[in-house]
Amino acid sequence: MARVLTGIQSSGRPHLGNILGAIIPAIELSRNPQNESFFFIADLHSLTTLKDGAERQNFVQAIAATWLAFGFDYEQNTFWRQSRIQEHTELAWYLNCFTPFPMLANATSFKEKSEKLSDVNAGLFTYPVLQAADILLYNAHIIPVGKDQKQHLEMTKDIGSRFNQLAGSDLFVLPEPQIDDRIMTIPGIDGQKMSKSYHNYIDIFQPENELKKITKKIVSDSTPLDEPKDPDSDITFKLFSLLASESDVATMRENYLKGGYGYGHAKQALFECMLEKFAEPRRIFNYYMENTAELEHILTQGEIKARAIAQQTISKVRQVLGFGS
Amino acid sequence: MARVLTGIQSSGRPHLGNILGAIIPAIELSRNPQNESFFFIADLHSLTTLKDGAERQNFVQAIAATWLAFGFDYEQNTFWRQSRIQEHTELAWYLNCFTPFPMLANATSFKEKSEKLSDVNAGLFTYPVLQAADILLYNAHIIPVGKDQKQHLEMTKDIGSRFNQLAGSDLFVLPEPQIDDRIMTIPGIDGQKMSKSYHNYIDIFQPENELKKITKKIVSDSTPLDEPKDPDSDITFKLFSLLASESDVATMRENYLKGGYGYGHAKQALFECMLEKFAEPRRIFNYYMENTAELEHILTQGEIKARAIAQQTISKVRQVLGFGS
Repeated sequence: MARVLTGIQSSGRPHLGNILGAIIPAIELSRNPQNESFFFIADLHSLTTLKDGAERQNFVQAIAATWLAFGFDYEQNTFWRQSRIQEHTELAWYLNCFTPFPMLANATSFKEKSEKLSDVNAGLFTYPVLQAADILLYNAHIIPVGKDQKQHLEMTKDIGSRFNQLAGSDLFVLPEPQIDDRIMTIPGIDGQKMSKSYHNYIDIFQPENELKKITKKIVSDSTPLDEPKDPDSDITFKLFSLLASESDVATMRENYLKGGYGYGHAKQALFECMLEKFAEPRRIFNYYMENTAELEHILTQGEIKARAIAQQTISKVRQVLGFGS
Repeated sequence: MARVLTGIQSSGRPHLGNILGAIIPAIELSRNPQNESFFFIADLHSLTTLKDGAERQNFVQAIAATWLAFGFDYEQNTFWRQSRIQEHTELAWYLNCFTPFPMLANATSFKEKSEKLSDVNAGLFTYPVLQAADILLYNAHIIPVGKDQKQHLEMTKDIGSRFNQLAGSDLFVLPEPQIDDRIMTIPGIDGQKMSKSYHNYIDIFQPENELKKITKKIVSDSTPLDEPKDPDSDITFKLFSLLASESDVATMRENYLKGGYGYGHAKQALFECMLEKFAEPRRIFNYYMENTAELEHILTQGEIKARAIAQQTISKVRQVLGFGS
């Protein structure tokens, strides 16, 4: 059985792009009986960019509620909040001392973030070390990542093997990245990749009127209603085709091509499609957001499972380093 | 009552220089009833330069045994091992995210260490952040430091006040350094400052024959036995005058000046003086090194006191940052 570990970003409420591009595929993978899934909400990492405590708490709850809303089996798998397991930061300190400074200084993602962000802090710099701790703590075999995370995974292996060399054992499992090239890029309302930072995202858990409003804002060209339209260059059509049934998509394509069908009609169809398709997730999401104690209880159960493994690992690490056990 | 906090380096067994220059003065300060002393063995920091676990464990025990041997009142004060309180590394992560990268990159001590050491790791880089966590965790008011640590203390205040600004409160006490300019520099056997890294130190806890051997190695000039000698330029005399009674020092000075008194005589006198002066500390030191379970018990008692305060602080910090409590 392979242990698959995924850290879930927690610097925002999940949007349609996250849900279609990451959450649903990950939940499908977690149903594979060959795998044992360890999914955690990386709230410690979010502190590198997000300082507001109330926002963080709200985001963490919204993220947990989203995963549950899309049917993640938290009982079969392990689902927890990173910040509740002190072994993450403890191991991160140990690993800092096994991480060459230039390795971090030359990391592509740090260079990119340094250029973009005004708050370039030491957490941003040591981000990959905390990530290595997240992974090595749980003896994870497989880490599904996007291409942009490949370098961080290599750092994890490098740091882990430096430690193993000192320990003279395979104390840490060195994980393999599973790079999914098929990862869908979901267009935002402006046609760029849907992303919180581009402010072009659709939050499917909003109240109906808000959801309708944002759907209407999807960018379209100025072809008059009567004229035929190109479905393949239109954002609304693309989003609709990711969500609707094959026959509904085929019908909309015909409508586009024959003319007399406006973007407004298409947007209305997309809106209705989202409401219908996500009726159950919306219900569950709202339920948990109104019953956060229940959500907390679920995360606490996950913490107990995660902690047991984390404590085993850290105890071995402490012994090697002469910190007792 | 002022809370005085001191982190004790743990990258070696304490030598005569540490004992005269730091340990005895700190223990004297801790007897001031105006102060409450928090002394911890900074074993997490030692990982930046020392990787060997067995050595670390031995050093930590030797350090604890030394402080006890010189009469540190562990019951009246708080005395613990840093690595046993997970809140140190947890807070260090939070503070990383409040520490501007350039502040660390420009730190003098990091630049100096980077030039000297072959293993320039991320722990070395974030060293001042862990130090800030050590201090802020315990609401310490006064930090006695050498001049070389003044910059790190300023960083602690800077990081702490950034956090306080976010919290909108004085959650962290911003500590004041207490810079002791009178700090004695104890000469090593070659006349340079006594230091582990110069390999010129006297370990007063060695077996008698070893202690005698190292005393004989103290550098002296080649003035013949018959001739008068200058006490003020001689290392053996300097060391003797730090340890012996005023009248014994005066007698030795006369002997130097009148001639017919060799360096061999002076070294024998220094050796006997150390044996006599440190008879009780040597006995206690050896006792604890042979009864490490008792030592561990004492440190565990300290941990309980330290943890109670650390947990209070971290709970407030977590609340501010939205990590629960």
